[in-house]
Amino acid sequence: MLKAGIIGVTGYTGMELVRILHNHPEVEITYASSLEDIGLRIGKAIPHLDKGDDLVISAFDISDAVREAEFFFVCLPHGKSMEIVGPLRDKGAKVVDMSADFRLTDPSVYERWYGPHTRKDLIEEAVYGMPELHRDRIRDAELVANPGCYPTSVILALAPLLAMDGIDNQDIVIDSKSGISGAGRGPAPGFHFPEAFGNFSAYSIAGRHRHISEMEQELSTLAGGEITLTFSPHLLPLNRGILSTIYVRPTKIESDGSLYSIYRDFYREEPFIRISDPEGPLPSLKDIRGTNEVFIGFRSDKRSRRITIVSCLDNLVKGASGQAVQNMNIMVGFPERTALDLTALHP
Amino acid sequence: MLKAGIIGVTGYTGMELVRILHNHPEVEITYASSLEDIGLRIGKAIPHLDKGDDLVISAFDISDAVREAEFFFVCLPHGKSMEIVGPLRDKGAKVVDMSADFRLTDPSVYERWYGPHTRKDLIEEAVYGMPELHRDRIRDAELVANPGCYPTSVILALAPLLAMDGIDNQDIVIDSKSGISGAGRGPAPGFHFPEAFGNFSAYSIAGRHRHISEMEQELSTLAGGEITLTFSPHLLPLNRGILSTIYVRPTKIESDGSLYSIYRDFYREEPFIRISDPEGPLPSLKDIRGTNEVFIGFRSDKRSRRITIVSCLDNLVKGASGQAVQNMNIMVGFPERTALDLTALHP
Amino acid sequence: MLKAGIIGVTGYTGMELVRILHNHPEVEITYASSLEDIGLRIGKAIPHLDKGDDLVISAFDISDAVREAEFFFVCLPHGKSMEIVGPLRDKGAKVVDMSADFRLTDPSVYERWYGPHTRKDLIEEAVYGMPELHRDRIRDAELVANPGCYPTSVILALAPLLAMDGIDNQDIVIDSKSGISGAGRGPAPGFHFPEAFGNFSAYSIAGRHRHISEMEQELSTLAGGEITLTFSPHLLPLNRGILSTIYVRPTKIESDGSLYSIYRDFYREEPFIRISDPEGPLPSLKDIRGTNEVFIGFRSDKRSRRITIVSCLDNLVKGASGQAVQNMNIMVGFPERTALDLTALHP
Amino acid sequence: MLKAGIIGVTGYTGMELVRILHNHPEVEITYASSLEDIGLRIGKAIPHLDKGDDLVISAFDISDAVREAEFFFVCLPHGKSMEIVGPLRDKGAKVVDMSADFRLTDPSVYERWYGPHTRKDLIEEAVYGMPELHRDRIRDAELVANPGCYPTSVILALAPLLAMDGIDNQDIVIDSKSGISGAGRGPAPGFHFPEAFGNFSAYSIAGRHRHISEMEQELSTLAGGEITLTFSPHLLPLNRGILSTIYVRPTKIESDGSLYSIYRDFYREEPFIRISDPEGPLPSLKDIRGTNEVFIGFRSDKRSRRITIVSCLDNLVKGASGQAVQNMNIMVGFPERTALDLTALHP
Repeated sequence: MLKAGIIGVTGYTGMELVRILHNHPEVEITYASSLEDIGLRIGKAIPHLDKGDDLVISAFDISDAVREAEFFFVCLPHGKSMEIVGPLRDKGAKVVDMSADFRLTDPSVYERWYGPHTRKDLIEEAVYGMPELHRDRIRDAELVANPGCYPTSVILALAPLLAMDGIDNQDIVIDSKSGISGAGRGPAPGFHFPEAFGNFSAYSIAGRHRHISEMEQELSTLAGGEITLTFSPHLLPLNRGILSTIYVRPTKIESDGSLYSIYRDFYREEPFIRISDPEGPLPSLKDIRGTNEVFIGFRSDKRSRRITIVSCLDNLVKGASGQAVQNMNIMVGFPERTALDLTALHP
Repeated sequence: MLKAGIIGVTGYTGMELVRILHNHPEVEITYASSLEDIGLRIGKAIPHLDKGDDLVISAFDISDAVREAEFFFVCLPHGKSMEIVGPLRDKGAKVVDMSADFRLTDPSVYERWYGPHTRKDLIEEAVYGMPELHRDRIRDAELVANPGCYPTSVILALAPLLAMDGIDNQDIVIDSKSGISGAGRGPAPGFHFPEAFGNFSAYSIAGRHRHISEMEQELSTLAGGEITLTFSPHLLPLNRGILSTIYVRPTKIESDGSLYSIYRDFYREEPFIRISDPEGPLPSLKDIRGTNEVFIGFRSDKRSRRITIVSCLDNLVKGASGQAVQNMNIMVGFPERTALDLTALHP
Repeated sequence: MLKAGIIGVTGYTGMELVRILHNHPEVEITYASSLEDIGLRIGKAIPHLDKGDDLVISAFDISDAVREAEFFFVCLPHGKSMEIVGPLRDKGAKVVDMSADFRLTDPSVYERWYGPHTRKDLIEEAVYGMPELHRDRIRDAELVANPGCYPTSVILALAPLLAMDGIDNQDIVIDSKSGISGAGRGPAPGFHFPEAFGNFSAYSIAGRHRHISEMEQELSTLAGGEITLTFSPHLLPLNRGILSTIYVRPTKIESDGSLYSIYRDFYREEPFIRISDPEGPLPSLKDIRGTNEVFIGFRSDKRSRRITIVSCLDNLVKGASGQAVQNMNIMVGFPERTALDLTALHP
Repeated sequence: MLKAGIIGVTGYTGMELVRILHNHPEVEITYASSLEDIGLRIGKAIPHLDKGDDLVISAFDISDAVREAEFFFVCLPHGKSMEIVGPLRDKGAKVVDMSADFRLTDPSVYERWYGPHTRKDLIEEAVYGMPELHRDRIRDAELVANPGCYPTSVILALAPLLAMDGIDNQDIVIDSKSGISGAGRGPAPGFHFPEAFGNFSAYSIAGRHRHISEMEQELSTLAGGEITLTFSPHLLPLNRGILSTIYVRPTKIESDGSLYSIYRDFYREEPFIRISDPEGPLPSLKDIRGTNEVFIGFRSDKRSRRITIVSCLDNLVKGASGQAVQNMNIMVGFPERTALDLTALHP
């Protein structure tokens, strides 16, 4: 039985880890910390997670943490995360970090987008935790940087085409729409229910969203050359789900049928990638709510000579905590689907 | 491995049975019928359930059905249901019926509220499938009438007080609010998205809703005397959940603390009843979304000498398909919680 | 042209006053204050109100206020409101106060429910601003206490029956459901979009909600005897609207038809009360969104000997700012419907 | 007093015309037809529009129509519309047609996208009813083809840049998101509340949506050369609003500031176009809900050498019935803003 600790258990990704790990037969949550609700049972602080468990929320303490648990999920904002991941790694614990702190291999890129980095020594050992691209390295990693929600939806949608050099690398437009749980659990004016209900808006468009750094890093590697993206995030008035609509210029692809073959072949062995039959309906958020899947569809347009790709995931599962558990399974040697064979909750 | 059949698999309760049974280690769905999508794989007809299973949707045929499966869930409207349940029982198959057709023990009451009954011969063998009240009889039943969604939320909230003769039986007001999935999967003007979004309304108030018959039957039995209810259903602009607010006049109860003891004692052994600590927040729909729980809270009001009870459940799980699986587990002898240890999906 | 001032213009009721008064041909907003966005044009601080007006938001100053305007709407929380209303009245300005501070005629009742009252000297001159009940007194008033949102939906629904002594005064149950804009514009955990979306909950039930004091005051006056209510407020996951479902025991009424006559007669001359034909559908929130109407329907239930009343209004219009403008129209002598002939925004 | 007729009054655009015209001092609705609710008062058939008016819904009859009214709004689906517009024009009545039937100047383009056209004789006299581009011709028109909702949001957002030849005409990507009222009032599986609530999806992507024909016609005219667009519509789980995110390659523009000048200059005299200050927040749906405005913002991205434009409108007002009233005002000679000085309903 693996003893797991969750740092930041009262945020949405921490809460979602509790939900998912509840069904994991090989893992027990033995440590959970937060800045709030200290001293309360998890089920008391968070009623929807009350399964009668006894675990009490602690204030983080490094000695307590490594005594109680051996594997950690760190669910903190960037900048704060490295201050906890560092000591945990110094003590030898394995870590999946949910923040951006160890996702970028080049510290100067990190500092341009996010600010100072105080644990650059750990950047080299960190592996970008996208199993579909880096499974072998994750298997041996002790520190995994769990990908961002938008990047997961985008990188996995583009990987097959970039890997085959099938599109114009300099002409990629990404229009992403995310449910509001992606903004975290802290109240703020823009996420106040009466402001967001029935509303829809774009934000941080035109090169201003930090996830661009992470997408460009991974996509450039896949393409074997530097890629610059146009990326627009939007806020959907719902809770769970990201849908990215991606526009590319094909250089070799002739039909939806050949696209389908390319994606099916590329992801043939992948347990959590679903490719939409081009004859069927396009993927939508309801198809994957609550699951660890990425659901990808596409249509080619001969008139405008573009391919439009639609990629859906649940931002709290494959976009965060589900992918984190997938990474843990790989790192520890559990079957990769353990606790992740989830069926979508619809309606 | 129990071979289960679902009649009416493309409705919301049929779909939800597929979701729940996917996690049942002792059950395989070997037969599924519908009036639509015949010949399609379930996962093709219903993308959110696509787990790669091969089962194809059939047009119902009694010979095929009993050849392929031994236990059936019948998910059809009242009136239609008895036409399928009858033949299935004639062939000896065990059945959980989701409709109202076998819930009422008095056929004349059925016919007053619902219309003609063509299989009155089966009424006597049918057991009302509320395990908290009738577990022993369910264990031996071959035909279980699965309770209605509103009645489940109401009967379980009132049972402890009626069983102890603790309230005025002639002064019960029930104000229930249900998510729109309770109306089924068929489009209709009142459930068209633009009509229902941001709206809220009452319907079938003042003694017009058919579920009254079922509530009064069970509550009168508990009380040992005839009960007449005031019941108002409302339509909430959301998908899952019923919250019933119930107003009663206490005859013996002095405090929230004693109420808490009464409920805790009454449901001490029950796996799916959660009682809210009177010091904590009241139950809300988010606490039980996707689970098989009924979550009950209450406050007594000395000023107006009434107790207000708040009862929440997911209408598609404990209010329908989850309770059906619970009944199946009891009928077949599986541990009662199997496949039902679900954690709420929130946010 | 009446010069009007709005104190607290950046809250929801202040914002709604700007929307409504924009269409008032006899009123100009010449003063607007807030604790935030000081120095900004209203249209800059609140984009949906940007009609190109020049008015700039000020920090409140009594001398500025009475120099710039002659009639004031005070949109502040209880307790804070009396600190502004007092000086404005001392300077002779007419005021409609949106808070609870001057709604209760008995200061000891105020202090029991709300806390200390520092301007008891003004309580006697204040008139409870429900035109349907107190139009004559409002006409002569210089200080009007604008009713609460829940009380408006409840008092107007019960007035015809209490005035005729047609129901049991000691057996009234009120189950109210409000959109979240009623909670104001300040972010808080329970109103964070991901928490409230798709959720539904009761709060402050069993005699704990402050609006009870105001409802009991007005209803007791109507009934000519002391009334104690059972009142349960709930939070609907939508923005605008209150629907109250009210349960009473008739003592004289025989049918829905006679109920209809009673209500039609009682409100014959009222411009903002609509009575639902008992043959038609019940009132719902979409029917009155954005308007100054109260829409009332009912059904009598011979089985349980109760009448169920359904009452709908827009909490920001008839439940707040619309009723405030109606009061202003009466106080100043404008035609009562001016700026209030609003059509519902649906879908 | 202009006597106006509405053909198809029970659909969403017909209903919205009633709402808007209620405030028009120079127009009386004297004729209203529909296929349903014939013989009912409008306010009886559509409760939210019940202002006590007496007008009864008729079955369409050409003689009755032109006897009762002189100006018509035809709110019917394409194909059906020409069958009514034709006879109305034959009788000399002025018409604003809400369908696509007279939007395309080239009949062969119409027939490619929509099907057979039986009144090609009227195409030449029809004017595309976008006042910002064709006001002079609308003034003299007797048949105006009211623009589509998506095209209004897109054409007005691109016009200033195309008119100055400021972008690459062959590299335009349009990602549009629409509320579900745009799909009309008829129930259908995809618009059933439980299916659409909390969902988000793309549809008719990659050159399949009919509005492309209309956008390309107008934009090609503006650009002085043929334009081929990439257009992806999406379905938002809300009622009112379209937000289009548009990606272009600038050829001459250097900064957000110069963009602001270009848009401000181009739309200097326009009453219903609002340009967002590049220092302020981007436009969002709540800013324009219920109004006749188009609200446009933009950001340039030096990294990826693209400009991203965000354009918002209410699909039932500026995207349909509001623009229709604007066209009527121009055609008849009323001040253009009459009945259209609407303030957004938020929250």
